[in-house]
Amino acid sequence: MTAIDLNSDLGESYGAWSMGDDAAMLAIVSSANIACGFHAGDPLGILKTVRAAAEKGVSIGAHVSYPDRVGFGRRDMDVTSAELTADVIYQIGALKGVAAAAGVTVGYVKPHGALYNRIARDPKQGQAVIDGIKAIDPDLVLMGLAGAPVHEVARKSGLKTVAEAFADRAYAPDGQLVSRREPGAVLHDTDVIARRMLQLAHEGSLEAIDGSTINIDAQSICVHGDSPGAVAIARVIRQAFESDGITVRSFLGA
Amino acid sequence: MTAIDLNSDLGESYGAWSMGDDAAMLAIVSSANIACGFHAGDPLGILKTVRAAAEKGVSIGAHVSYPDRVGFGRRDMDVTSAELTADVIYQIGALKGVAAAAGVTVGYVKPHGALYNRIARDPKQGQAVIDGIKAIDPDLVLMGLAGAPVHEVARKSGLKTVAEAFADRAYAPDGQLVSRREPGAVLHDTDVIARRMLQLAHEGSLEAIDGSTINIDAQSICVHGDSPGAVAIARVIRQAFESDGITVRSFLGA
Amino acid sequence: MTAIDLNSDLGESYGAWSMGDDAAMLAIVSSANIACGFHAGDPLGILKTVRAAAEKGVSIGAHVSYPDRVGFGRRDMDVTSAELTADVIYQIGALKGVAAAAGVTVGYVKPHGALYNRIARDPKQGQAVIDGIKAIDPDLVLMGLAGAPVHEVARKSGLKTVAEAFADRAYAPDGQLVSRREPGAVLHDTDVIARRMLQLAHEGSLEAIDGSTINIDAQSICVHGDSPGAVAIARVIRQAFESDGITVRSFLGA
Amino acid sequence: MTAIDLNSDLGESYGAWSMGDDAAMLAIVSSANIACGFHAGDPLGILKTVRAAAEKGVSIGAHVSYPDRVGFGRRDMDVTSAELTADVIYQIGALKGVAAAAGVTVGYVKPHGALYNRIARDPKQGQAVIDGIKAIDPDLVLMGLAGAPVHEVARKSGLKTVAEAFADRAYAPDGQLVSRREPGAVLHDTDVIARRMLQLAHEGSLEAIDGSTINIDAQSICVHGDSPGAVAIARVIRQAFESDGITVRSFLGA
Repeated sequence: MTAIDLNSDLGESYGAWSMGDDAAMLAIVSSANIACGFHAGDPLGILKTVRAAAEKGVSIGAHVSYPDRVGFGRRDMDVTSAELTADVIYQIGALKGVAAAAGVTVGYVKPHGALYNRIARDPKQGQAVIDGIKAIDPDLVLMGLAGAPVHEVARKSGLKTVAEAFADRAYAPDGQLVSRREPGAVLHDTDVIARRMLQLAHEGSLEAIDGSTINIDAQSICVHGDSPGAVAIARVIRQAFESDGITVRSFLGA
Repeated sequence: MTAIDLNSDLGESYGAWSMGDDAAMLAIVSSANIACGFHAGDPLGILKTVRAAAEKGVSIGAHVSYPDRVGFGRRDMDVTSAELTADVIYQIGALKGVAAAAGVTVGYVKPHGALYNRIARDPKQGQAVIDGIKAIDPDLVLMGLAGAPVHEVARKSGLKTVAEAFADRAYAPDGQLVSRREPGAVLHDTDVIARRMLQLAHEGSLEAIDGSTINIDAQSICVHGDSPGAVAIARVIRQAFESDGITVRSFLGA
Repeated sequence: MTAIDLNSDLGESYGAWSMGDDAAMLAIVSSANIACGFHAGDPLGILKTVRAAAEKGVSIGAHVSYPDRVGFGRRDMDVTSAELTADVIYQIGALKGVAAAAGVTVGYVKPHGALYNRIARDPKQGQAVIDGIKAIDPDLVLMGLAGAPVHEVARKSGLKTVAEAFADRAYAPDGQLVSRREPGAVLHDTDVIARRMLQLAHEGSLEAIDGSTINIDAQSICVHGDSPGAVAIARVIRQAFESDGITVRSFLGA
Repeated sequence: MTAIDLNSDLGESYGAWSMGDDAAMLAIVSSANIACGFHAGDPLGILKTVRAAAEKGVSIGAHVSYPDRVGFGRRDMDVTSAELTADVIYQIGALKGVAAAAGVTVGYVKPHGALYNRIARDPKQGQAVIDGIKAIDPDLVLMGLAGAPVHEVARKSGLKTVAEAFADRAYAPDGQLVSRREPGAVLHDTDVIARRMLQLAHEGSLEAIDGSTINIDAQSICVHGDSPGAVAIARVIRQAFESDGITVRSFLGA
């Protein structure tokens, strides 16, 4: 393996409130998951972030969410399939419009927060998201948790997917993420994280929380930028890849 | 003149709340101004209305608004030009996405409510709307009040426009709408309205509130569908046109 | 038993959108569950409904909800206890303010929609609602589904409760409501409904969907007003009670 | 003069987004203008800030706004008087509820942003705000710009008012604030600001931007806490007052 994608959640400011350091992250990642207004992002802020991503040549993905701004899309919601499909279409459409205004295109879709976790395991909501993506643009790629059943659901519907791993998260021996409520779920040691990501890129494996080695087939790595420490970790990961001859580039291809 | 467009505001339900009789109006009009979520319209409701319009072959326009759902977009707001341009891009993009999912395209943009009235006379906000339209799709047509300065502003920016008249509104001798606060501003007599619209279509003129005759150059006529009485008026206008050999069809052409 | 309470969901219009016939229902019920702005109700609409209820001498309850306007509070949400407690305090406070402006007081709290169903069975969210009520005003009464465990949870916390039955719903032999997804879950025959409610008021029992007789200890009956047919049913229930010597009055007492 | 009030805008975080350093400011000010959810503030965040203010013995005011979260209440809106009155009642009521849950009371009302500026000069919207305050609690005090006509409008309605000056703003020779669009409108020099505030407290006067001396009759001084620099300025002002024998305390009295 000589190339991998780095993705991060961007455009998550809202009106007078800022979140994250989009400018710093756009110098690090190859793919930007852009908030579409349902959990975060107002039109002007989204437009500015998409323009900045366009200048840096960073790929654009739609970071679609449940309609829950006050909860930042982090709360599970029992939406109907019809509602979810339409919500996905609306959000992708809005971001496609903003991208068109910035002279670029949306290449993929990454559900956010509670919706991301829900569709990893829930085929009903997963299918509703897939139906929305296919309805608006069947060439869009769905980004999902490496190893999750949603990839199979998407492929059966004829939708391409890309699997991602999380740089700063511990994994259980079965390949699932350790819940944030468990001790040790979130990694903070920059050197450890960088070493793990090199192993992931070179060998497709990671050390699980119990010390066993697990296979993770991921084409993209999610890094965070919501604190100065998180940006620093992301930067070190990128530098480790570059020092090691691994090109950081979008999975979307040329 | 052998053809004219009839347009109406549709897709203005919101979640559990309904507004207007979209099904009835889609059998009458040739152009549907579809709410984009800022003053009205939730994604699922918008999708249903766009699909119904697609089935009837009715043209789709983006009914963009200030972000004021509780005020139904009827309250003037001092938004900045940058905010307004981005809001317009976002809303048109969202509707384009929904239209794509329904297999049709958005052909024009009609600002709603307070924004409609504001840009008719305010070149700053008008330019911001125009900039938004051009940024996302310069082939979109701007629909505006017949005789208003916004048409000239748009044409200078290279944007096509279409002028509309209001079927149920009285006009002042200078060609402006009589304010709703004045007596006689809103017409209710179906026969009178139908006769006026025939004169408008044939001769490009209307009788003003003082009895004088004024020229109105309009390619589209706005009819309402928010009450059974309003639907009935719209239906009579369409029948009057058809009986008189005037084809009701979208201004967007073949 | 010589008296019973009739309650209904009111104040559920939102801005330009109306819902229900509040004026008609205020002539029928003795308790008004008033939307507090999270699933429905804008400040001016809430104020108008509370003023109308005050004129009729109808008791006021806070119809608190998840923050989900587009879903009308009908979708289950995994809010945290801290969020839910604060949401309940905020909504009750807002309605208390409106009630003060109308010269009346809020006497009880009835959770709405998905929150109502959730707390009937989920002690964690139930406790969070109870904590919110107690924090703002421990004299408020919690209205809940007759027979549901939430009453016991509330009483342990020192909160008074009142149990309600649903006039137009079928009951399972275990005393639970038949799910709306099942055939026969919603009753439409006005005479049948009125006869059932008389039996409930006189004997504290109802015929379950399998023909068995079940005991329902309810001090209030919920009637709907969201359609002309629903208003008619509510009116017939009231007339049946009055003809039979049963006084319709608030459970809050003199 | 031996005492003055310091006030600041607090509780302006929203869900996952933070704004300002409420903890730092609560150690400096004697009055906290708490966001009520319309321009900023979610129920849980508001509750936390009110509890923290209660612990510090800081007075609570309702920082009511136009309903414009994405614009942070900074955009002028043509709301009707009836809408504005109801919006004010709802917001004050919500904050009163939160304050009750924290064991304290709301003592005053300070309109926010565009509404603050609008009612300083517009008697129609000013009267609507005053009507809302009086309807919910006529003992509340209205905080307004020193020298603005709104004080007279309020007093004629029987509402008490308190006048405030802005620590970091330049004044025109006529006593009005220099517009933020003008050079020199915002002061940054901590020593200059502290010296000006001492003069204001002792002599009731300030140096205007043209060098002339103007009288400003203010019982409260607004300080900001939205950046580390702003917090530092507020802290220096408080220290200057204390060193000079001026007590910083709420205008609400014992």
